[in-house]
Amino acid sequence: MKRRNFFRNGTLGAIGASLFTPFESIRASDFESSWKRKKAKNIIMLVSDGMSTGTLNMADLYLSRKTGKGSSWLNLYRENKVSRALMDMASASSIVTDSAAASSSWGGGARINNGGLNMGVNGELHLPIWQKFKAVGKKTGCVTTVPITHATPAGFCINQKSRNDQASIAEKYLEHGFDVLMGGGNEYFSPDKRKDKKDMYTAFANKGYAVVHNRNEMLSVPTNNKVLGVFTDSGLPFTKDRENNKELLESTPSLAEMTQKAIEILKDVQKGFVLQVEAGKVDWAAHANDIAGLLYDQVAFDEAVQVAMDFAEKDEETLVIITTDHGNANPGVISGNDANDNFDSIQKYKHTNEWILNGIGKETSVNGVKERVEYANGFSLTDEEAKTLLSYYDSLQPEEGLYNPRRLPFGALAEIQKQHNSVGWISMQHSADYVELAMYGPGSQSLKPFIKNTELHYFMLEAAEVDNTF
Amino acid sequence: MKRRNFFRNGTLGAIGASLFTPFESIRASDFESSWKRKKAKNIIMLVSDGMSTGTLNMADLYLSRKTGKGSSWLNLYRENKVSRALMDMASASSIVTDSAAASSSWGGGARINNGGLNMGVNGELHLPIWQKFKAVGKKTGCVTTVPITHATPAGFCINQKSRNDQASIAEKYLEHGFDVLMGGGNEYFSPDKRKDKKDMYTAFANKGYAVVHNRNEMLSVPTNNKVLGVFTDSGLPFTKDRENNKELLESTPSLAEMTQKAIEILKDVQKGFVLQVEAGKVDWAAHANDIAGLLYDQVAFDEAVQVAMDFAEKDEETLVIITTDHGNANPGVISGNDANDNFDSIQKYKHTNEWILNGIGKETSVNGVKERVEYANGFSLTDEEAKTLLSYYDSLQPEEGLYNPRRLPFGALAEIQKQHNSVGWISMQHSADYVELAMYGPGSQSLKPFIKNTELHYFMLEAAEVDNTF
Repeated sequence: MKRRNFFRNGTLGAIGASLFTPFESIRASDFESSWKRKKAKNIIMLVSDGMSTGTLNMADLYLSRKTGKGSSWLNLYRENKVSRALMDMASASSIVTDSAAASSSWGGGARINNGGLNMGVNGELHLPIWQKFKAVGKKTGCVTTVPITHATPAGFCINQKSRNDQASIAEKYLEHGFDVLMGGGNEYFSPDKRKDKKDMYTAFANKGYAVVHNRNEMLSVPTNNKVLGVFTDSGLPFTKDRENNKELLESTPSLAEMTQKAIEILKDVQKGFVLQVEAGKVDWAAHANDIAGLLYDQVAFDEAVQVAMDFAEKDEETLVIITTDHGNANPGVISGNDANDNFDSIQKYKHTNEWILNGIGKETSVNGVKERVEYANGFSLTDEEAKTLLSYYDSLQPEEGLYNPRRLPFGALAEIQKQHNSVGWISMQHSADYVELAMYGPGSQSLKPFIKNTELHYFMLEAAEVDNTF
Repeated sequence: MKRRNFFRNGTLGAIGASLFTPFESIRASDFESSWKRKKAKNIIMLVSDGMSTGTLNMADLYLSRKTGKGSSWLNLYRENKVSRALMDMASASSIVTDSAAASSSWGGGARINNGGLNMGVNGELHLPIWQKFKAVGKKTGCVTTVPITHATPAGFCINQKSRNDQASIAEKYLEHGFDVLMGGGNEYFSPDKRKDKKDMYTAFANKGYAVVHNRNEMLSVPTNNKVLGVFTDSGLPFTKDRENNKELLESTPSLAEMTQKAIEILKDVQKGFVLQVEAGKVDWAAHANDIAGLLYDQVAFDEAVQVAMDFAEKDEETLVIITTDHGNANPGVISGNDANDNFDSIQKYKHTNEWILNGIGKETSVNGVKERVEYANGFSLTDEEAKTLLSYYDSLQPEEGLYNPRRLPFGALAEIQKQHNSVGWISMQHSADYVELAMYGPGSQSLKPFIKNTELHYFMLEAAEVDNTF
């Protein structure tokens, strides 16, 4: 056997001959030097909501096998550009957090009970971090694929006893005047949908916001404008369903497009900006064990990561934080003779399970069910399996689920699909796993390999050199 | 709100006021300086076989909640002592590796098909890394909780087409004369058990080995002796069953005790030593969705990590590598109102599911089943659940499973337990997840945040400054 040439082949390549010299940085990249002495003028925090480690891995594996190039997130590891940590996301009430307590831990710097927003266990208020940064002159924004009033953006922006009153959250956003707010959630802004009939759109417009409702309007907003973008009643469509639907492609933007636009609007301000980017439907897909929903929305998140990185690498004054708020369903590819082919078959999926199941009803025939699954997934159900799915539509005990108002049989379909795609799930709920955290840019060199969620609040303030004297 | 004092409170404490000074190491610990200029004279590689990220997390969570102090592995992160990476463990034949191809990727530096040991896809032989280190004068050893002839130790030691012929592997070990070999596997050494009736014990003794069969004999081996320790027919008992059985406590050592003894035997040699430590039954427990087997064997692995670290921190010339070879079953704690109490209930478990199910037979009464589970787990089965378990013992379709020769209903029991302990599993098989890798000591500063399994082979040689000219 021949001596392997390390200098060409990887692992030790970057550090080469100077392996044991003193002051050798653990990250010997050229990237660090450009921002080492600077503070973080801007912060972009990207959150793939409910992303189990297996979700991160599967997206990278999918991209590696399809394109020969992994995910942007893990390529940052391959290129040795970031600091990494595990983060303990427990809330005050449970080792398994919800998104509200999770976002509040970062947003308010304290662990609170599940369900609340920056309101402590004794009712005390924790000032949300986007209000802190706003107070020192930074522009502030949030973009998401779920309602913009949902827990993850709200936890950086406002205080409220319960995450559920999203109509009130919309009013609090208006009161504080955050610069960029984009996502779904028309039901909390439209006078036709709100119980109190308030027209939040007009109220935002009256405060100088550009109010936009589709992709083209969003792309056309002048970059000196505040913007409220609300594109759908509830969450935005799943990436996989959107990409196969011309109407949705026009009516809704991708997460990467919202991220790009948000950066354009927020940048070029002397005091800097802070932006939260959430792939909220990764969590919804995990709650439904919906692999096409999960995988392609994780890839869409990854494209937003790339947008943020492209900006940050040029800007050199931006701290990019990439993470998730908790695991969900802990998916993974299961061993078996056909594991490779099965996993690769997901590349050919045309639609999510949400699309499949929403197109079935009591009246659908067995053949109708089979044709729909064959079209969307490329495999044939047995008659027995089709009948099993149909049975839920006429049942007194249909499936439940957090984001399953029509009580569709997501679990039953995932169980059938598992034989064909080799993806398994532990449940349809959040998990207690510590989560992956990566950072690039000024301040990132100070990240320790294990932190508690609340520490990130103070970390952001410190990296931006903002005194926490609020 | 008051300004938080970082210097007392953590995240940024260690680096404090010098946050943005040049030459700030990402790991600002005192530990690095002591070994920064040295090569790795010794390597201890610890492998928790089949450890999904959730297993690592649950062991830390369990210890944190029970003792107020996390696991030794994750405390290395909390104390900022190690470098970390994700490692892609795919084999040549599958994105989901088996332990043989996984160990061969590290051991031989090449990806091979599942099932083989350092034999390439075209039959080519890859020289195992413990043979390389032996050739340059280092002492070599392996200790494990499964047969010492099992895939993970064998992949560092020998070449063979199939992992299954463990009797041949025992002979190859003898031929090469590795210094420390300890674990289970009597059926591959004893003339009473081997098909060819060879007495491998006498053969090892004739080559100067101390041959030991119980804990006390092992502890008494002189440290200038080679040693073969074989304590059980197949795998060693699960930690949780051993700790509640006086006989097993005397007949078998813990993994930490084997690790300690191995280090005592191998150390103090001018050219250094290399040692592999495997918690092989973490994988077996995951294959059985056996939470008490999994969690307490992971904790036992963690105690072996501490033994290695205690040595390495004093020695200052030892590279410690801590990892797993693949995920298995991706367990996690599932959200729910009782998640905390449910997870904590595992603290009171007295025995593994293997113990529970092996004590049940066709003749056992419903009440007998209920009493056994109540004794071992502290909760009551319903009559229906007890009958369900019993039904498998008299069934034409009992459960299968890799390490389930008696075809016991492990899956059914785990499904019942889930309601009481909130732990879920995606399957009873390996998963494709990228795995956690941590390193301490000379060379560890060169670890990039993402590597392929094969790179670790060359990394070890490079860290030890051994030219790969074999």
